[in-house]
Amino acid sequence: ETSASYTDSSDDETSPRDKQQKNSKGNGDFCIKNIKQADFGRREIEIAEQEMPALMALRKRAQGEKPLAGAKVVGCTHITAQTAVLMETLSALGAQCRWAACNIYSTQNEVAAALAEGGFSVFAWKGESEDDFWWCIDRCVNVEGWQPNMILDDGGDLTHWIYKKYPNMFKKIKGIVEESVTGVHRLYQLSKAGKLCVPAMNVNDSVTKQKFDNLYCCRESILDGLKRTTDVMFGGKQVVVCGYGEVGKGCCAALKAMGSIVYVTEIDPICALQACMDGFRLVKLNEVIRQVDIVITCTGNKNVVVREYLDRMKNGCIVCNMGHSNTEIDVASLRTPELTWERVRSQVDHVIWPDGKRIVLLAEGRLLNLSCSTVPTFVLSITATTQALALIELYNAPEGRYKQDVYLLPKKMDEYVASLHLPTFDAHLTELSDEQAKYLGLNKNGPFKPNYYRYGSTSTHLSGDTLWHPA
Amino acid sequence: ETSASYTDSSDDETSPRDKQQKNSKGNGDFCIKNIKQADFGRREIEIAEQEMPALMALRKRAQGEKPLAGAKVVGCTHITAQTAVLMETLSALGAQCRWAACNIYSTQNEVAAALAEGGFSVFAWKGESEDDFWWCIDRCVNVEGWQPNMILDDGGDLTHWIYKKYPNMFKKIKGIVEESVTGVHRLYQLSKAGKLCVPAMNVNDSVTKQKFDNLYCCRESILDGLKRTTDVMFGGKQVVVCGYGEVGKGCCAALKAMGSIVYVTEIDPICALQACMDGFRLVKLNEVIRQVDIVITCTGNKNVVVREYLDRMKNGCIVCNMGHSNTEIDVASLRTPELTWERVRSQVDHVIWPDGKRIVLLAEGRLLNLSCSTVPTFVLSITATTQALALIELYNAPEGRYKQDVYLLPKKMDEYVASLHLPTFDAHLTELSDEQAKYLGLNKNGPFKPNYYRYGSTSTHLSGDTLWHPA
Amino acid sequence: ETSASYTDSSDDETSPRDKQQKNSKGNGDFCIKNIKQADFGRREIEIAEQEMPALMALRKRAQGEKPLAGAKVVGCTHITAQTAVLMETLSALGAQCRWAACNIYSTQNEVAAALAEGGFSVFAWKGESEDDFWWCIDRCVNVEGWQPNMILDDGGDLTHWIYKKYPNMFKKIKGIVEESVTGVHRLYQLSKAGKLCVPAMNVNDSVTKQKFDNLYCCRESILDGLKRTTDVMFGGKQVVVCGYGEVGKGCCAALKAMGSIVYVTEIDPICALQACMDGFRLVKLNEVIRQVDIVITCTGNKNVVVREYLDRMKNGCIVCNMGHSNTEIDVASLRTPELTWERVRSQVDHVIWPDGKRIVLLAEGRLLNLSCSTVPTFVLSITATTQALALIELYNAPEGRYKQDVYLLPKKMDEYVASLHLPTFDAHLTELSDEQAKYLGLNKNGPFKPNYYRYGSTSTHLSGDTLWHPA
Amino acid sequence: ETSASYTDSSDDETSPRDKQQKNSKGNGDFCIKNIKQADFGRREIEIAEQEMPALMALRKRAQGEKPLAGAKVVGCTHITAQTAVLMETLSALGAQCRWAACNIYSTQNEVAAALAEGGFSVFAWKGESEDDFWWCIDRCVNVEGWQPNMILDDGGDLTHWIYKKYPNMFKKIKGIVEESVTGVHRLYQLSKAGKLCVPAMNVNDSVTKQKFDNLYCCRESILDGLKRTTDVMFGGKQVVVCGYGEVGKGCCAALKAMGSIVYVTEIDPICALQACMDGFRLVKLNEVIRQVDIVITCTGNKNVVVREYLDRMKNGCIVCNMGHSNTEIDVASLRTPELTWERVRSQVDHVIWPDGKRIVLLAEGRLLNLSCSTVPTFVLSITATTQALALIELYNAPEGRYKQDVYLLPKKMDEYVASLHLPTFDAHLTELSDEQAKYLGLNKNGPFKPNYYRYGSTSTHLSGDTLWHPA
Repeated sequence: ETSASYTDSSDDETSPRDKQQKNSKGNGDFCIKNIKQADFGRREIEIAEQEMPALMALRKRAQGEKPLAGAKVVGCTHITAQTAVLMETLSALGAQCRWAACNIYSTQNEVAAALAEGGFSVFAWKGESEDDFWWCIDRCVNVEGWQPNMILDDGGDLTHWIYKKYPNMFKKIKGIVEESVTGVHRLYQLSKAGKLCVPAMNVNDSVTKQKFDNLYCCRESILDGLKRTTDVMFGGKQVVVCGYGEVGKGCCAALKAMGSIVYVTEIDPICALQACMDGFRLVKLNEVIRQVDIVITCTGNKNVVVREYLDRMKNGCIVCNMGHSNTEIDVASLRTPELTWERVRSQVDHVIWPDGKRIVLLAEGRLLNLSCSTVPTFVLSITATTQALALIELYNAPEGRYKQDVYLLPKKMDEYVASLHLPTFDAHLTELSDEQAKYLGLNKNGPFKPNYYRYGSTSTHLSGDTLWHPA
Repeated sequence: ETSASYTDSSDDETSPRDKQQKNSKGNGDFCIKNIKQADFGRREIEIAEQEMPALMALRKRAQGEKPLAGAKVVGCTHITAQTAVLMETLSALGAQCRWAACNIYSTQNEVAAALAEGGFSVFAWKGESEDDFWWCIDRCVNVEGWQPNMILDDGGDLTHWIYKKYPNMFKKIKGIVEESVTGVHRLYQLSKAGKLCVPAMNVNDSVTKQKFDNLYCCRESILDGLKRTTDVMFGGKQVVVCGYGEVGKGCCAALKAMGSIVYVTEIDPICALQACMDGFRLVKLNEVIRQVDIVITCTGNKNVVVREYLDRMKNGCIVCNMGHSNTEIDVASLRTPELTWERVRSQVDHVIWPDGKRIVLLAEGRLLNLSCSTVPTFVLSITATTQALALIELYNAPEGRYKQDVYLLPKKMDEYVASLHLPTFDAHLTELSDEQAKYLGLNKNGPFKPNYYRYGSTSTHLSGDTLWHPA
Repeated sequence: ETSASYTDSSDDETSPRDKQQKNSKGNGDFCIKNIKQADFGRREIEIAEQEMPALMALRKRAQGEKPLAGAKVVGCTHITAQTAVLMETLSALGAQCRWAACNIYSTQNEVAAALAEGGFSVFAWKGESEDDFWWCIDRCVNVEGWQPNMILDDGGDLTHWIYKKYPNMFKKIKGIVEESVTGVHRLYQLSKAGKLCVPAMNVNDSVTKQKFDNLYCCRESILDGLKRTTDVMFGGKQVVVCGYGEVGKGCCAALKAMGSIVYVTEIDPICALQACMDGFRLVKLNEVIRQVDIVITCTGNKNVVVREYLDRMKNGCIVCNMGHSNTEIDVASLRTPELTWERVRSQVDHVIWPDGKRIVLLAEGRLLNLSCSTVPTFVLSITATTQALALIELYNAPEGRYKQDVYLLPKKMDEYVASLHLPTFDAHLTELSDEQAKYLGLNKNGPFKPNYYRYGSTSTHLSGDTLWHPA
Repeated sequence: ETSASYTDSSDDETSPRDKQQKNSKGNGDFCIKNIKQADFGRREIEIAEQEMPALMALRKRAQGEKPLAGAKVVGCTHITAQTAVLMETLSALGAQCRWAACNIYSTQNEVAAALAEGGFSVFAWKGESEDDFWWCIDRCVNVEGWQPNMILDDGGDLTHWIYKKYPNMFKKIKGIVEESVTGVHRLYQLSKAGKLCVPAMNVNDSVTKQKFDNLYCCRESILDGLKRTTDVMFGGKQVVVCGYGEVGKGCCAALKAMGSIVYVTEIDPICALQACMDGFRLVKLNEVIRQVDIVITCTGNKNVVVREYLDRMKNGCIVCNMGHSNTEIDVASLRTPELTWERVRSQVDHVIWPDGKRIVLLAEGRLLNLSCSTVPTFVLSITATTQALALIELYNAPEGRYKQDVYLLPKKMDEYVASLHLPTFDAHLTELSDEQAKYLGLNKNGPFKPNYYRYGSTSTHLSGDTLWHPA
C-alpha cells in the first residue's frame, strides 16, 4: 500500500490472454494487463534509474563495446521498475530478452506496459493464475525462430520448465544465472545428481549481495516491518531474536540501538559467542518466553516457535518471522477451535486464547520483511548488477573455464559490483601503489582478499567420530 | 608496567645458564632465573586458572581418559601464567612437555619458577641474549632418551631449529601446531616448496581466534592503548582509520561509540562498501590528513602513512599502528636532522618540526595493542584452548586423515572451542531437535554451518584478463 | 492510513448536527457521526486499555476513594481510543465529563460512538467545518443546569471560547490543565497581561512528557516517517539535522545507529558542544547542503531551510520537518512557476527544477512525525496520566496553594507518572532505606531530585551588556 | 603513574619551609620544593597550553583591555600544569595572584617551580603535612601590604581559613568563586545561616562543566579506570550500575557500546524510566548480585553496596565506585578477621572469603575515575575557563547585581565557555538572522534557551501530604 499505485480502477476484468494489444510501433509479441499504462510505468522506471547508478554506469561503458552482443536471454524474475532497469541495461549491452514473472502477485502492470511499449517481449501481469504462470513462461521460450542461449532465473521455475519441456534447448545455452536460495538449492541438487548440463552461477551467495540482503537490509526492515504493522514503541521492550546469523545480527543491532533489551537464541556456539561479545544475553527460548514483548525468528529452521511457546507468551506479545523460510513459526498449531483469530489490519492477526490473552501474529508467519516492508532500491541495485555481471561472465568465458557445475561469482567481480556502488556514497577508494601491491602480493585491480579471508575453508574430510568432541 | 611484578630487586646478575638450581623434589632439568620465586608464580597461575575455564573443563574431562597419553610435546611460546595453565592442562591430558620461550623479553620469571617447581622442564628467562634464546630451544629438543612427537610453536623458530639441526626427528613427529602469522607463513612456504614433512595445523586462522584477536580484542585495546599513552579524550575527535578489515572494524566501532568522528580508507571495494553502510565516510588519506586528531593504521600493508602525510598533519596529531606489521608508518622517514624527537613517556615520542609543530608517535610505529595495552586473559584462553584441541586432533587422528600439508582447525573443533567458553557468560546454547536437524541436514552436534557459510570459496581459476572488470 | 479504519463506506452524507440519535439507554445528549459504530469503537478502546496500564492503575486505586467526586470537567482534545481511556478513567475517579474535539480531522468516529453509547456527552466527528468546530465546543459548556469546574484543554481553543463567551464561568472553575505548546503560550501571555483568573497547569513541560514526546518518540518516528514515505535506505546516507535539542538528539541518535553519516547545525554553543561530544560534525548548513541526501529540521525556528539552500541541494535530496512549527522550511518559496510539483504519494511531493533536478518534500513541510508516522500508545499514556494527575491536583489543592498563575506539574507528581509506567517494563525501583534518605536529605517517597538538578536556574537579572561576552 | 614525572630522585629531604630559594630575578616570595625544576615545569605548561585554547583565546582578547586590572586573587586549587595556564591567564588579564594547594598530594613540583620562576607567589609542594597545608594557605593571605579582593577556592578550605582568622578581609573582597561540590555545599550552608558576607559563584553546577565532568568524562574514564586496574575484557560481561544520573548514564552508554550487558538500579522513577527507554533492565541489586561480573556505584548515596551484597557476589566480581562520595561501598564491613585482603596491584585489592571466593575491590571504594584514571585536559580547560569568567563577572559586576548569596554562572557566560571550546572541534556555529531572533524572541548573542529549558522549575511549595501520591 505504501508503494505508488497507478492502477486504473476502471480496468476491465478481461484476462490479458484474451486481449489483443500492440505497442505504438505495432509490435504485439507480449502479453500484459494494459499497454495504455506505459507512460506511468516509464516514469517509475526513470525514478528507479536514478537510484541504480551501477547499471547506468554499465550502460555507459557499453557505448564502446557490446559484451552481450548475440546473447539471447530468457528471464523469469519479479517484474518491477528495478527489473526494467536491468532488462534495458542488458539490451544496451547487446542482448535480446524475453521475460516472464517469477511470482503471480508481484508484477507492476504499468512497468510491464512500459517494457512492452519499449519493444520487450514481456509476459506477465499482477494476479496470474497458476495456469497463466506456466503459460507465460512457456511463451518466453517456446517461440519460433528464437532460442535462448542464457537463462536468468529467480526461483528455478524457468530452469525447471526448460528441463522438463525443452531439454534440447540446453545444447545452445551457455549458462544459468540464479538468484534465489530455492533456485540455488535446486541447482546444487541437479549438480549432485550429475544432471546439470550447463554451468550455473549462484549469485545469491555473492558476498556483496549477502551482506546487503541480510545484515544491512534487515537492520532497517525489522524496524520498518514492526512499525508499519503494529506502531509498537521499541524503547524498553524485551525482545528475543532466534538465530544470530547475518539476519539476526541486523535485527539485534537495530533493536538494541532503539533501546530494546534483546535476548538471543542460537544453536551454533561460534555465533553464540559472537552474540555474547556483542552484548546480548544468550538464552534458551523457554527461559524468556513468558517475559518478552516481541519474538522474532531468523533461523532458517522449522518449528522454532511452537505451540508450547505460543501458549506461554504474555498478553500482547508480537510474533514475527524474518528468516528464509515460512516454517519457523508453527502457525498451523494455532488453527484450533479454542483459539479465535481476529484480523485487525492487513498482515496483522490477533490470536485470542480462551482466557482473553491475545498474541499479535504478523504476516501469518511469512517473511515480515517481504510482506510488511519494502526492499530498498539500493539493495535491488546490487542484486541486478550482480546478475548482469554474471551473465556477461558466463557468456564471455573462454571454453573450459566453467564446467557443468554451480559457481559462485568470481571474487573480483563481486568486488566490481561493490565498487560500482561506491559513488552513491561519494566514497573514494584508495589505490595500491606498485610497491604496496608487490609487498602484499596482490594485483592492483584485485581481487584484494587472499583465499583464506573467510571463516576458513575447513578441511571437510573430518568424520564426526573423533574422541574429543562435545559429548 | 600494569601487570603485577614480583621480581626481587636484589636479584643477582648471574646468568641462569651459570646457576645450578634444583626444585624441592631435587629435579634440576630446567634453566630459569630463580626457583625461589615459585610461590609467587603459583599464585599468578591460580589467578589465571580462574579466567581460563575452558582449559579447566578439559582437565576435568581428562580424569576419565588421557587423549595425550604418550604425547611428548616440545613447545616454544611466550611463558606466562596463561601458558602455564595450558602446559599443566596438557600434562593432565597425559602429555610430557619441554618448553622454551619464543621471545627474549616476555618470560614471567616467577611463572617459569613455578613450572620448574612443578616438574616441567622449562628453559627461559626474561632478558635472554640471542645466544641464550637458541641455547634454550636446543635444550628442549636435544636431550638424551626423550624425543618429541608433537611440536607447539609460536613464530616458527622451534620448527626451524629442528629442520636445521635435527631433521631426522620429524620421523617420529606426528604434527606441528603453529600459532602465529609469521610461523604459519613459513609453513605454507615449506608446503609450497614440498618440504613440509609432517601435517601442520594453522590455529591462527581459526574463526573463533580470529574474531577475538582482531575484532573483539581491538575494539577494546584501541581505546586502552590510546588512553594509557596519551590520556586523550575521544569525544569529538576526528580520527582516520586506515583499513576496514576486522581490526579496523573493531577500532572504528569503539571510537564511534565514544563520540569520535571516524573516517576510513580502504583499497578493497567490498570492505569499503561495508564502511559506508556502517556509517563511516570513505576517504583517501590526503583528503582528511590536515584535519584529523588521530591516525590509526590497520592495513597489514607498508608505507600507508608516509612522510608526505606526516608533514601535513596538524599540531598534536596522534599517530599509531594497530595492524599486523610494523611497516605501516614510515617511521624511518622521521629520522632526519631537521626533526627533533622528544621522548615524553614510555612508548610516546613527540616528533617536532622546525616550525614547532609536534606529532605524537606511539610505540615508534610498532603495534599499539601489544606495546601499550594488555591482552585480556579471555582472548588468551581461546588461543590456548585452540592449541590444546589442535594437539589432541593431530595426535589422535587416524593414519591418513592429515597429509604433509597445512590445515585449518576443523570447523567442528572451532565450534567446540567456542562452546567451552560460553559458560563464562552464563550463556545457554539451544539444541536442535531430531526433526530440526534432519530438516537442516545437520548433525545435532555440529558442524552447524554449511561449507558456503563464508565469503564464498570463489573459483580461483579466474585469470585477471576478463573484459568487463574495472579499467 | 495505517491505523485501523472501520468507517462504513455507505455512510450517508448527512451532517451529524442534522441527525437525531440516541444511545441504547435513550440518552441523546451528544452529537457524533453514527452511534451504530459503538461496538467497533469499544474494541478499539479495549485494545488501548491494554497499553495504558497507568490509567488502569489509577482506576483501581479509585475503587476506595473518588478524588474527582464533584468535578465537572469540560475537555477539548483529540478524540481517539486513548482519550477515551482517559475520559473513562476520569469518570471512574468521580468526574462528570463533556467533551469536544480540538482538531477537525482527528476524531475517530467509532470511538466517539462508543463514548456516546457509554453515556458521555461527546460533540465531535471527523471532518467538522470551522463552524461545526465552535458549535461543538459551545455545546459542551453552554448547557442548562451544568457548569464546568475544571478545564482540560489542548490548544487553548476551549479556554479561549469561555473567556470570550462565558467569562463568568471562571468563578466556579478551579483550574485549567493545558497540554499543548500553543495553549501554554497563550496562558503565559494571559498571565503576563494579568488576565489569567484561575490557576493553570502546564503539563506540556513536565519532565516525563517532554522526554517522551521529544527524545524517545522522535528517535523512532524519524525512521518510521522517512521509511513510510520514501522507503529510503539509511545506511551510508549523509544527513544534516538542523537543531540539537531533544528532538534533534533523538533524530541524530537513530540515524547514526542505522549507519547514516550525520551533520548537525546549531545556534546554541552548549547544544553545539554536546553534538561534538556525541560524535557529530557541527557545520553551517551551506557547508554541506550540496552533498547531503536528507535534510531534517528540528529547531522550532523559521526559515531554516530557505530557497537558496533548496536550489543547491542535489538531485533526490529528501527534505522534512520534525520541529515544533511548520515554518522551518520555506515551502512558499517553492511555489514559483519555474518549479514543477509532482505528487508521487500521499504526503510526498517531488519538486522539479528546470534542469530536471528533483527534491523530495515530505508533508509539504509540516511535521513529519504527526503527518507520516503514528504516535505510540505508550507516549499517549504518559500524556493522559499526566493530565489526570494534574486535574486531581488542581481540584484537590487546598485554598491558596495555587494562585492565578501558570504552574508546572509538581516534581513529585511528575515522578509518580513515571513510576506508574515502570511496570510495563517489568522494572523494579529501589527504595531508600531510612538511613539513606536521611543521608541524602530526601523524603523516601520523593521528590528525589534537589531543585538544582537541572540546567541551573540561572540568574536572569543579568543584562546583555557585560564587557566580556562574545563580541 | 602515567603522567610524566621529572622529579629529581636525588632530591634532598629538607622541608621546603626550611629552604631559602630565590628565582632567577631574585624574588623569594614563594615556598616550593625546588626552583631548579622550573624548566621541566615550563615544558609541561607549554604542552598544556596547546590543549587549553579557550584560555589562550581569553589572553588574546586581553591584549586590548584588562578586565581583571586591579584584581588581587588568592587561590587554593590543585597545582598542576593546567592550573598554571589558568593563573598565567588571570595574570595576563590584569590580576595579581597568590596561590596554595587544595590537596597535600596533588602538587606537581616542577610546575610550582615554573610558576615561582615566573614571579608567582606559590606555596605548595607534593607531600605537605596537615600543618604545612594550613601554613601555606596562611602565607597566601597573611602578607603585609597586600590584601586579596577575590577568592578562587576548590573545597572551601581557603574560604574557611579567612572566615576563621581574618574575617575583616571580607570587607574588601568582591566575591568567591568555588569549584567543588563540598565547597559549594559549605557556601549554601553559610548562606542559609545568613553568614555569607560576599557574593559567591557556584561554578560546579554550570551546565557545561556538569555535562563534561559527569556524562562525557565518565563515559571514557569508566573504561579507562577498569582497564588500567584489571585488564578486564568488557565484551559479554554482566555489569550492574547503581544510579542513572549523568555519571551512571555515561558509564552505561560506554559499557553497552563495548558489548557488556548492563543492569541499572535507581530510586528515582524518572531516571528509572529513562534507563528503560535507553535499553537497560531496571532491577533491584539483590536480583542480579549473584550473577554480575562488575558492580559500579554512581549514586552519591551511602551504603549502596553493603556486606550482605558483597557476601553474595560471585568469585572474581569487580567492585568500584564512580559516584561523588566514598560512602557508596561499605568497605569498612570488609575489614573483618575472616576476610583476607591481598594487594595485587596499586589500587587493586583482592578480598578473599574463607571458601576461597575473591572479589576485586578497586581504590578501596574511593572514586575510581580520580584514583585510577586521568582527567582529560579538555575537561580541565572547561573548568578553568569557567573559573576565569566567573572571576571576571564578579569583579566587574555593577554594584547590586549580586547580593550576599550563592549564584550559578549566568547562562550567557556558560554558553560563552562552550563557544570558546568549539574551535577545538573545528565546529561552526550557526548565527541567527535578525528575523529569526525576533521570531524566537531571543537576543542574537544569547542566552539561547528560555528559562523553562530544564527539568522545570517546579513549584516547591507543595507539601508531601497530597492524597494521590504513591502510597
